Amino acid sequence: MAVYTILSDEDIETIKTAYGLGDIINLKGIAEGVQNSNYLLETTDGRFILTIYEAMVSIPELPFYLGATEKAANLGLPAARPLKTKDNKMVFEFRGKSCAICTFLNGLSPKTPNTEQTKAAGAMLANLHNALNDYDNIRENDLSLSGWKKMWGECKLEAEKLENGLSILIEQDLKEFEDNWPKDGLPKGFIHADLFPDNVLFTGDKVTGIIDFYFGATDFFAYDLAVMLNAWCFISGGREFDITKGKALIAGYQSVRPFNDKEKMLMPLLARGAALRFFLTRMIDWTKDNEGAIVTKKNPREYTNRLAFHRNAKSFADYGG
Amino acid sequence: MAVYTILSDEDIETIKTAYGLGDIINLKGIAEGVQNSNYLLETTDGRFILTIYEAMVSIPELPFYLGATEKAANLGLPAARPLKTKDNKMVFEFRGKSCAICTFLNGLSPKTPNTEQTKAAGAMLANLHNALNDYDNIRENDLSLSGWKKMWGECKLEAEKLENGLSILIEQDLKEFEDNWPKDGLPKGFIHADLFPDNVLFTGDKVTGIIDFYFGATDFFAYDLAVMLNAWCFISGGREFDITKGKALIAGYQSVRPFNDKEKMLMPLLARGAALRFFLTRMIDWTKDNEGAIVTKKNPREYTNRLAFHRNAKSFADYGG
Repeated sequence: MAVYTILSDEDIETIKTAYGLGDIINLKGIAEGVQNSNYLLETTDGRFILTIYEAMVSIPELPFYLGATEKAANLGLPAARPLKTKDNKMVFEFRGKSCAICTFLNGLSPKTPNTEQTKAAGAMLANLHNALNDYDNIRENDLSLSGWKKMWGECKLEAEKLENGLSILIEQDLKEFEDNWPKDGLPKGFIHADLFPDNVLFTGDKVTGIIDFYFGATDFFAYDLAVMLNAWCFISGGREFDITKGKALIAGYQSVRPFNDKEKMLMPLLARGAALRFFLTRMIDWTKDNEGAIVTKKNPREYTNRLAFHRNAKSFADYGG
Repeated sequence: MAVYTILSDEDIETIKTAYGLGDIINLKGIAEGVQNSNYLLETTDGRFILTIYEAMVSIPELPFYLGATEKAANLGLPAARPLKTKDNKMVFEFRGKSCAICTFLNGLSPKTPNTEQTKAAGAMLANLHNALNDYDNIRENDLSLSGWKKMWGECKLEAEKLENGLSILIEQDLKEFEDNWPKDGLPKGFIHADLFPDNVLFTGDKVTGIIDFYFGATDFFAYDLAVMLNAWCFISGGREFDITKGKALIAGYQSVRPFNDKEKMLMPLLARGAALRFFLTRMIDWTKDNEGAIVTKKNPREYTNRLAFHRNAKSFADYGG
């Protein structure tokens, strides 16, 4: 939650020239986004978000992420559209940094989305999947099974300290994923992979923005909803699943793109995998000695709680399907 | 540089109701401001800055600061105008926090203001002094001589570690201030006391905003310009005074409000005092163990360099007067 790169007067001029921007009216660093520096940029041509990519984002993969949000925007979804530089690039480099400028989206991210908002977000996810169905850019999801095994190796010892007996449970999860995680045969394509409430903007109950495509990958659509089940439908620090929200999310999604039987059957497993994915990244952040970092660490326990729920879930119906 | 207070959905609703705001279109935490949490708030009625006051600002003094910016705005200066709550208060309390909402000002704060901008800022300071001449709210400047002596006690030992022999020099400064600092007889009134370039917004070379009145006090007008001489007119880490900028700043100020002979004569002393004031607060921040703080510490040496210049300055002419 910070601005890491402070722009000099010359940087601003360089960027303005590269993109052929109108006169700059406002430029304010915004506190959102934990991975990049974001500025709200207003010119005589309109409002934009200027993002400067910091160490945590892979620069070669930017065209994948930015291409996806561009395609979504071009197809009428409320996604940010990247501006092009005068020489037609979406990523601009200055002073050894990479940046992009995207159109600004109105709306608020509710801390606790209501049921209608949850439903609308589910529908928007399905719209995104449909819209990008023929997105021909591919990026393997490095935060899926093979990535989890690697991450688990890095934080196993600490995890056991966090909660006695936890490591046995996680190893059982991993064993089960090893045996049963779908290799193929599920509808797949571009997934957002991180559609938490803070990545969705609303005006009232209407979705006016889906942002932050920087975990986007090519993976199972149903897994993307599994991420949202974790992110939108738990209460009490992850100890309780809110079935009303679950029903709303799934109904919203299926109002646009109904799941097939295999997707439904696999939902408990996918939801468990998604919970493990966020547990692991949080766990690794948690154990890291972030000297000088200004990122608020999120408690991994919120995801051990979710994992416990998913281990007991029997069917799609347990999620409101 | 951060947002310390995260607003819940209920907080937003509470604030909206208290002020009778229109529908909220955007709310983004902004990374500027080291003392408070600031949000860019856009409603159907316009754009505002919502400030939530954190531990570093004295709540009882808010009406003094906010009243000053209100009066300046009412007299046509580009200052932020505080909104009133439905029950006519400028400060609103929620969840044990105090906040205010002010009108949004367009413009950019240049990192390195040019000569024209420096001149315009000098003129704006004089306009502010004139506009608030009959501001009948009084606040003693606790960051003047008596405050410096106290602060010096807190950081003396560390200062000597910073630079061998520094403590003798500072004690000489303080002795001289004790003997010669003006008690009265200089024009005084509301001063901003912190008009650094990041507190002035420009469109091109035109001042479109003067912000952050939270060090404002009742003190000598000439001291306020002395602060700006330190903040706007030094280069090379404070080692060199830029006489062109000095001339521009002073000419700008005097184009609106000419200094009298006593103010001119005392300028080297006032400028030295202002340098000591910023040296001391930086020194105290520097030595503090800011565990968990996200404020970038500023190097106090930039002000020992300025102090060295001021000790050698003979007259107003040395500053471009």
